[in-house]
Amino acid sequence: MDSYPDTTLRCQLDDGVLIVELHRPAQLNAFTVTMADELETTFRTASEDDRVRAIVLTGAGKAFCAGMDLTREDNVFGLDESMDLTLEDLQQRFDDPAVIAGVRDTGGRVTLAMHDCKKPIVAAINGAAVGIGATMTLAADVRIASSAARIGFVFGRIGVVPEACSTWFLPRIVGLQQALEWVLSADIFDAEEAKRGGLVRSISAPEALLADAVALARKFSQGRSAVAVALARQMLRRNAALAEPRLAHEIESLAMFHTSKGDGKEGVAAFLEKRPAAFTSSAASMPAFYPWW
Amino acid sequence: MDSYPDTTLRCQLDDGVLIVELHRPAQLNAFTVTMADELETTFRTASEDDRVRAIVLTGAGKAFCAGMDLTREDNVFGLDESMDLTLEDLQQRFDDPAVIAGVRDTGGRVTLAMHDCKKPIVAAINGAAVGIGATMTLAADVRIASSAARIGFVFGRIGVVPEACSTWFLPRIVGLQQALEWVLSADIFDAEEAKRGGLVRSISAPEALLADAVALARKFSQGRSAVAVALARQMLRRNAALAEPRLAHEIESLAMFHTSKGDGKEGVAAFLEKRPAAFTSSAASMPAFYPWW
Amino acid sequence: MDSYPDTTLRCQLDDGVLIVELHRPAQLNAFTVTMADELETTFRTASEDDRVRAIVLTGAGKAFCAGMDLTREDNVFGLDESMDLTLEDLQQRFDDPAVIAGVRDTGGRVTLAMHDCKKPIVAAINGAAVGIGATMTLAADVRIASSAARIGFVFGRIGVVPEACSTWFLPRIVGLQQALEWVLSADIFDAEEAKRGGLVRSISAPEALLADAVALARKFSQGRSAVAVALARQMLRRNAALAEPRLAHEIESLAMFHTSKGDGKEGVAAFLEKRPAAFTSSAASMPAFYPWW
Repeated sequence: MDSYPDTTLRCQLDDGVLIVELHRPAQLNAFTVTMADELETTFRTASEDDRVRAIVLTGAGKAFCAGMDLTREDNVFGLDESMDLTLEDLQQRFDDPAVIAGVRDTGGRVTLAMHDCKKPIVAAINGAAVGIGATMTLAADVRIASSAARIGFVFGRIGVVPEACSTWFLPRIVGLQQALEWVLSADIFDAEEAKRGGLVRSISAPEALLADAVALARKFSQGRSAVAVALARQMLRRNAALAEPRLAHEIESLAMFHTSKGDGKEGVAAFLEKRPAAFTSSAASMPAFYPWW
Repeated sequence: MDSYPDTTLRCQLDDGVLIVELHRPAQLNAFTVTMADELETTFRTASEDDRVRAIVLTGAGKAFCAGMDLTREDNVFGLDESMDLTLEDLQQRFDDPAVIAGVRDTGGRVTLAMHDCKKPIVAAINGAAVGIGATMTLAADVRIASSAARIGFVFGRIGVVPEACSTWFLPRIVGLQQALEWVLSADIFDAEEAKRGGLVRSISAPEALLADAVALARKFSQGRSAVAVALARQMLRRNAALAEPRLAHEIESLAMFHTSKGDGKEGVAAFLEKRPAAFTSSAASMPAFYPWW
Repeated sequence: MDSYPDTTLRCQLDDGVLIVELHRPAQLNAFTVTMADELETTFRTASEDDRVRAIVLTGAGKAFCAGMDLTREDNVFGLDESMDLTLEDLQQRFDDPAVIAGVRDTGGRVTLAMHDCKKPIVAAINGAAVGIGATMTLAADVRIASSAARIGFVFGRIGVVPEACSTWFLPRIVGLQQALEWVLSADIFDAEEAKRGGLVRSISAPEALLADAVALARKFSQGRSAVAVALARQMLRRNAALAEPRLAHEIESLAMFHTSKGDGKEGVAAFLEKRPAAFTSSAASMPAFYPWW
């Protein structure tokens, strides 16, 4: 698809749903710096692309993503060992190319782009999803798994730590106890355990997974106000982290005020006239208070 | 009941439990600005009223609340379109009557009053609870549903966004994934799905719902220290949002210190003497460190 | 075990797992100020002791801990009533011996030490765990219960409030609704309800409980990088409380950068060579950015 990167990914648009496929099937879609760059670009581009109403993220072949490609040089482990930053140093040099290339977690660059995205994202976990293959799905809105999926936060096995903002997302999705157990055990578990623990919303047969994910993505976006969807998604992700509900009330008030003057007028009219609404807003034109964070 | 508003509500006191009934049954208890004003007044009055030990919120007739009354002028959609505030503007003019009337979400005024309340609140969802009908229940302490209940965060259907501080409460109650799915799908779901997703604690037969809710409210309050109940309720709601447990430790230390000198003395004596405790504190007289936020 | 206190506790090391037993069996392991001091010392010592890779906390005899020992003078209820601090006062005098002895919650001193600990902690709830007996387990990483366990946040029965940082931990583990219900009801519930509500991860036969807990503690620590385990544990506990995932990304970047230069090199080499890794880091030597909070 034009304007979307295609070295490690394949992107196609299916009636408003952008299907993003990790595409290194011979390497079980193992993650590289190029893949990180392409995913970040894809989510930031799709966020502003009016053709895209929602996104499905899945893997080509039998794996979703087998983790960081440990056989290559251009991965996170190829670090400049001379740097030894404090948190304050890192914050000051956050956008310094040397820090981006040498220190900043590549998975985090991808999940921050997913988190910032104005379009709903469904992760369709079609097979093995371990390490960054597991953590990158946490920034999606919902996760569905094939019955063949195997998932693991396996970082402890190779002496490293969870990344891709997973330490922020995982406890918010599954609670503190389950998050600690999966990370500390470094176990690889099946789709049933993932569903029991609250990580995936449902399990599909392997041959039905992609269609189920696309249907869900379409349900989240088709016939909807693009601005209202973008605002609702960001408010649920960000407002629950605020210290007090009054701060959420302030942001919701602005969001309701804005949408009520915009697509909400058409929505109420259509509701009262018992006809489908014809919303016209574009997520590329957000209200002045956005982003509020 | 004297000193409680009664245009859109019916309030009655049942042995310490204030039963607040949304009472526009011919309109399926659809929400209006008058109802918002009356609910805010009711919760703020009950918070200081020693006759009230706990509160049950329910609806008259077959619905709980069918959402905003979209047929009336005096609702949130009757906005002054000339205002276009930033978040900073809103915060500076938070108590400006024009902003209260024209911009601030009416549902949020209700749920902030529920959140601030010193008395436990049980929501008894007796039927349809959609839009503000669903979100207002999130500020209760627990929710129970009739098997006839139907619940939906349907804002997306009419091009607007979730409100009533639901973007703060919902992810804290059901987790981030379930919150995103219910809001993005805008589905209307039944009591079983609400229970599976963690939104309601239990399901009652329609004819048993109110009695079950009153029994639960009574269990939370009868024979209890009014000050200890008010403190515990606020600590659980607010302390988990703090950045570090040390801050919770500080507040808990003050709360334990205060209650141990007060009702706790009687509580320990009664426990050791194997008799019921006779607590005497009033939630209208909170300790000096309250509110700490 | 040398250098570990032993008046109210019994500590033994079992192949890297420190088993800490509350040991006042004739008093159902009721909690005293001495026990608080000994637990705080134990967790702070074990945090720096390379012989200890993980910790199991359990009770001697038929109870886990029956709560505060209300029959003794040296407990939290023996307060200096002349003190009446505001939150600001408490924060300024946080380390003042008079405040530590007279105001600060003893349970919180224990759970803050558990939270700060660099080693995974499994709570094995072998019997009654009420009051501080329930809340102290919340600071463990996971909880498993004997089928004979009975658990209760019973503070409301004696007119006091939940403590030991439970108002921070409990909603993060079981969600806001379940936390409010258990505290407001002050019920004592069984292991099945604890598991359904998400408080304990699993239930063991009484005779299997300790072995199951030790196996889990070993799984969390054996053959692992001590520094990576300590970092992952703290990141999951603290980062989810941050306002934005970008802050988690910054900390994870530093943690991944550090571990990738350290034990991660051996971990990747061992993985590629299909042999067990031989990690060498010590939790007593954390990277410069630790603690970041």
